[in-house]
Amino acid sequence: MGELTNFYNPTAVAIVGASKKPGKVGNSIVKNMIESGYPGKIYPVNPKDSEIEGLKAYPSVTAIPGPVELAVLSVPAAKVVEAARECGEKGIPYLVVITAGFKEIGKEGLDLEKELVATCRRYGMRMLGPNCVGMADTHTPINASFTRNSPLKGDIAFLSQSGATLIAILDWSRSVGLGFSKMVSLGNKGDLSEIEFIAEAAADPYTRVIACYLEDVADGARFLDVVREATRKKPVIILKSGTSQAGAQAASSHTGALAGSDLAYDTAFRQCGVIRARSLTELFELAIAFSRCPVPAGKRVAIVTNSGGPGIVATDNVEARGLTMARFTRETIDELRAGLPAEAALYNPVDVLGDGKADRYRFAMEKVLADPNVDSMVVLMCPTAVAQPVETTRAVVELQKQYPGKPILGGYLGGESMAEAVQLMAEAGIPCFTFPEPAIAAISGLVNYGQFREMPGDGNELSYPDVDKRAVKAIFYDVIRDNRLVLLGSEAAAVARAYGISAAPVSLATTPDEAVEEAQKMGYPVVLKVASPKILHKTDVGGVKVGLDSPEAVRRAFVEIMENVNLLLPEAVVYGIEVQKMMPKGTELIIGMTRDVQFGPMIACGLGGIYVNLLKDVSFRLARGLTRREIENMLAETKAYTLLRGYRGEKPADLPALVDAIGRTARLVLDFPEINEIDINPVFAYNQGLSALDIKITIS
Amino acid sequence: MGELTNFYNPTAVAIVGASKKPGKVGNSIVKNMIESGYPGKIYPVNPKDSEIEGLKAYPSVTAIPGPVELAVLSVPAAKVVEAARECGEKGIPYLVVITAGFKEIGKEGLDLEKELVATCRRYGMRMLGPNCVGMADTHTPINASFTRNSPLKGDIAFLSQSGATLIAILDWSRSVGLGFSKMVSLGNKGDLSEIEFIAEAAADPYTRVIACYLEDVADGARFLDVVREATRKKPVIILKSGTSQAGAQAASSHTGALAGSDLAYDTAFRQCGVIRARSLTELFELAIAFSRCPVPAGKRVAIVTNSGGPGIVATDNVEARGLTMARFTRETIDELRAGLPAEAALYNPVDVLGDGKADRYRFAMEKVLADPNVDSMVVLMCPTAVAQPVETTRAVVELQKQYPGKPILGGYLGGESMAEAVQLMAEAGIPCFTFPEPAIAAISGLVNYGQFREMPGDGNELSYPDVDKRAVKAIFYDVIRDNRLVLLGSEAAAVARAYGISAAPVSLATTPDEAVEEAQKMGYPVVLKVASPKILHKTDVGGVKVGLDSPEAVRRAFVEIMENVNLLLPEAVVYGIEVQKMMPKGTELIIGMTRDVQFGPMIACGLGGIYVNLLKDVSFRLARGLTRREIENMLAETKAYTLLRGYRGEKPADLPALVDAIGRTARLVLDFPEINEIDINPVFAYNQGLSALDIKITIS
Repeated sequence: MGELTNFYNPTAVAIVGASKKPGKVGNSIVKNMIESGYPGKIYPVNPKDSEIEGLKAYPSVTAIPGPVELAVLSVPAAKVVEAARECGEKGIPYLVVITAGFKEIGKEGLDLEKELVATCRRYGMRMLGPNCVGMADTHTPINASFTRNSPLKGDIAFLSQSGATLIAILDWSRSVGLGFSKMVSLGNKGDLSEIEFIAEAAADPYTRVIACYLEDVADGARFLDVVREATRKKPVIILKSGTSQAGAQAASSHTGALAGSDLAYDTAFRQCGVIRARSLTELFELAIAFSRCPVPAGKRVAIVTNSGGPGIVATDNVEARGLTMARFTRETIDELRAGLPAEAALYNPVDVLGDGKADRYRFAMEKVLADPNVDSMVVLMCPTAVAQPVETTRAVVELQKQYPGKPILGGYLGGESMAEAVQLMAEAGIPCFTFPEPAIAAISGLVNYGQFREMPGDGNELSYPDVDKRAVKAIFYDVIRDNRLVLLGSEAAAVARAYGISAAPVSLATTPDEAVEEAQKMGYPVVLKVASPKILHKTDVGGVKVGLDSPEAVRRAFVEIMENVNLLLPEAVVYGIEVQKMMPKGTELIIGMTRDVQFGPMIACGLGGIYVNLLKDVSFRLARGLTRREIENMLAETKAYTLLRGYRGEKPADLPALVDAIGRTARLVLDFPEINEIDINPVFAYNQGLSALDIKITIS
Repeated sequence: MGELTNFYNPTAVAIVGASKKPGKVGNSIVKNMIESGYPGKIYPVNPKDSEIEGLKAYPSVTAIPGPVELAVLSVPAAKVVEAARECGEKGIPYLVVITAGFKEIGKEGLDLEKELVATCRRYGMRMLGPNCVGMADTHTPINASFTRNSPLKGDIAFLSQSGATLIAILDWSRSVGLGFSKMVSLGNKGDLSEIEFIAEAAADPYTRVIACYLEDVADGARFLDVVREATRKKPVIILKSGTSQAGAQAASSHTGALAGSDLAYDTAFRQCGVIRARSLTELFELAIAFSRCPVPAGKRVAIVTNSGGPGIVATDNVEARGLTMARFTRETIDELRAGLPAEAALYNPVDVLGDGKADRYRFAMEKVLADPNVDSMVVLMCPTAVAQPVETTRAVVELQKQYPGKPILGGYLGGESMAEAVQLMAEAGIPCFTFPEPAIAAISGLVNYGQFREMPGDGNELSYPDVDKRAVKAIFYDVIRDNRLVLLGSEAAAVARAYGISAAPVSLATTPDEAVEEAQKMGYPVVLKVASPKILHKTDVGGVKVGLDSPEAVRRAFVEIMENVNLLLPEAVVYGIEVQKMMPKGTELIIGMTRDVQFGPMIACGLGGIYVNLLKDVSFRLARGLTRREIENMLAETKAYTLLRGYRGEKPADLPALVDAIGRTARLVLDFPEINEIDINPVFAYNQGLSALDIKITIS
């Protein structure tokens, strides 16, 4: 809250670039400020006019007699920095810069924007914009924007990174009677971004739900920290567009290739409890549901209908969305049987039949809502000849008051015949849709959020006091000095071991004798692999020999590998040959890491082996703030989990050891931002412990 | 067509059970018939009245002087059969039975319905219903239903298995200005079903698109044959509900377990070109698009917008739906650059900017539509201060006429500000939505249908003249005589071989000597497996020995297996021990078959091995009418396909041999309806040929 205490509720507002000319942005802002009913002082600023829209105008902000808490700037781009400086001199804490022509137009604009931001910083001013439509708060009330109308009063805070979308949504919302607590056009996010506004809205008593249209996130790490807190208090629903824009990132690792471009947002949103909308329609369907409905206690949905068809459609949707159809108690069934006609369907969905009038609906809805096995209810109605939509809706409204903890949603199928009833539902604040599907989708959103909020905090990031940072640093130092970015297998294994990840013994040998010596130390059988950062597919060049169980075999393999490589890749720099102990086979997994530009390192785990890219059985989490429970969830999401729990009579794998190895991998990549990518594939998971076989680490 | 030639356009209609009382169904039908403007004769039939709604009423259908082509029955259930009989005597070819109280109420009703159907058959009458709302045709025009209103005139044929849904859709459609060619309430589908009505609508010159709400399909095999034809002529869109109802079918095979309950419908719809809608909203969004838009030549979409945000949302959707963003020619880019402001985005999406008026939109849209790389166009508009929605829409309408082959769809974001323009679009027959997403979804539907229709017929079912039906019959005869339903491995292999499927050599031995003899015949190494239909997990009881490469090893294994089984499962009936030649390892696949109640046998193929249920990499096709191309598509849908084409440098598998084996499996299960389930797992696919290792066949 702190930072934005009076941003939405300033004592006085200056409009710099105010204009007398209707149609001009500087005129619309003044008009909107007046029409919004803003209770504070409004100071139009324009050197050429002494009065604008009936208000005294001032030649400059410094000429304004009293204090000003917010300045809205709508002067040409070239004059914005100077205007901001004057505001700074005047001691104004908040700016809204409407003017466009900044970073969105390229290099020149970017420089200007940097200058503007620097000016704000110098004076400790916080700025919304530049290049934005402005903001409105219906509870202050204030409308410091150039929209055509003001939003209706409500409890949805809407933040939009697209000004035109905000204008369109405002226009649409008025036609469907939807209200907002605040509307903010984020513009270029030169200073203030979604992060501050989400934090503020989470603390705002007038806001019940936060809906955002975003094209990117200003600061991934801070976004995670702030939004994780916010979602504990209120639902945050985000439509993140531009999923197709990021394009194919160059990725050399399996993990990177599996991650794709949009996954980081998906993962980040899920990890901090954001509900991700997939369309503008869904964004507002969810916002409406959250604004109007209580969060249900569970996922058991009851349906009351006057027609079988829509009931079946709704049932399909309940199952498709992972909700469950409520199973009524025996008492409910008996009461329904006693009170409804013989042909009525008593089990969920309850069908009061095509000749059901309001009284029958009321009876069925009462019994259903009273049932302890019911968490939410959907009322479906078709305009049959005798249906009484208005009277039935009256019953719905009363019952919602009686059962404030159980969300009720309507699916009133029809047009004209339903119009009055639909209006009545809107007035009572009960979401009502033309078809059953959005009602079920909305309940699903409510339930998911409820489950997220129920989850115990479990906020402790995993800590591993035993890790040896210094050892890792030393290895990286050597690698860089050697002018490499890819670690040798033996180096990577040493890094893993320094972080307590159980890697199979592996050593670099440069002569057959050394190889034999290492093999004797670790015990037979061993594998020999050529060590050369340039050779990616070692098997293809005869660079790997497995199952070597004697000094002779090791010696012979060493020579053969060297011959093969010299023959096929004479130009490759060979560091020697790695001797690795052959480990007993376990369940093959992959643990990996790829780095996202916005959100930092992402940890992956799933089915490993050579088919990892084919099977794509990998789940992801951001390393930042990763908890034990998140790692467990991550494992549980994979098909590999079925194997790990003991598939077809096999012994279960050592899950705690796996969780530990994943947590330590996360710690490693957080401690060393220079690690670019990690693939540990395969990891053999055993009934007791695990072994990391092939570890690839790339640094930058 | 034949069967229903005059059903929608009868020369005269009798309404049996017509009533004078407003509110009665028998009264509503008479009124609807009159108000629809039906040009033929209307004969109300009621023994008690001589005049109804101004029309002369008759005591019975036989008392009607002239011929009658359609009778609508709305008498009590108990009197329906008698009324139908009279209609038969009168020589009336078509009945619409509105009356409820038939199979939907249980056994008694079912008997009555059977009697009714039998009566229709006796007189050669075709019947819609019973238990339906009736039907309407806006081109005849006729409204033989008890709906409150008549549908508006249009070119969508709507068939609904739920009467209340039909009533609701009718009510809704009038409020949004949507018209229909026909509306049919299918009721209990006692005689006529969706099959006849789809066939008829496909031939109807007034119908452009067929939309259905179905809860089941009357006759799977006939549905496939008829609808496959219909979709070649017109788009058929079906919302099939009840996907959750079928519940978990008991399935003992892998294939059965993987198929799930809704898969058969999904597969059937896809194989016969039906577009499956997932919600009522989508059903009509698609119907509207198909009714109003041409099918585009390809999937390259252009977007013209006055705001970045919605443009990005639309781009995301284009990619998510498998469409592509059109890449304009150099000429188009140059022309756009010359004609648009410097800040405008020239590449797709084209952004005419927030200050773009109608002339700029028109210019951009003209250039975009003229581009040969553009197949369809979406116009997005936000209500910016200077936007000219109505003028822009005029340009859209003109351009659609100029480019009749390229669908144009609108996404007009906003409410009031857009209302007039939206109305204009509706009048011009151009689909327009409040948000971008449905416009893209609609294009995706159009493109998918276009691709389906482009596909060459390829109608030849695969034929295999070399199969040995008699051999299979003989094996089944033996199995049944032995009181079994599960074939032994050696029997299953013999069945496969009789149908030309290359099975690994396997023989049943009852003594160690026999086992050695068989092993000598097929060559070492061999596997021994206990042969007992009751032992499902042979390995678990020590019933399998692999890698036997000498007569001694075979002899010893035989004895050991017998001892193990006697010890662990003394009560199991053991038929002997199967000797199977060990085949070289290939890519492990599964080929299987499960039988669907509606659509008959479904063939599956995909990744095989012990993890088949875990990896779930299996695709399905109905065996009926399966073509070579469908089998190829089926393989191409699996992840296994990547392996089969040669993964990571391995040699590709023999795809023609696989297609052949799958085709032969389909032939086998079509020829032998008594085959309940088949699992061939693994099939080893080689660079040349394949080998079916473990074949399980269950009969019934």
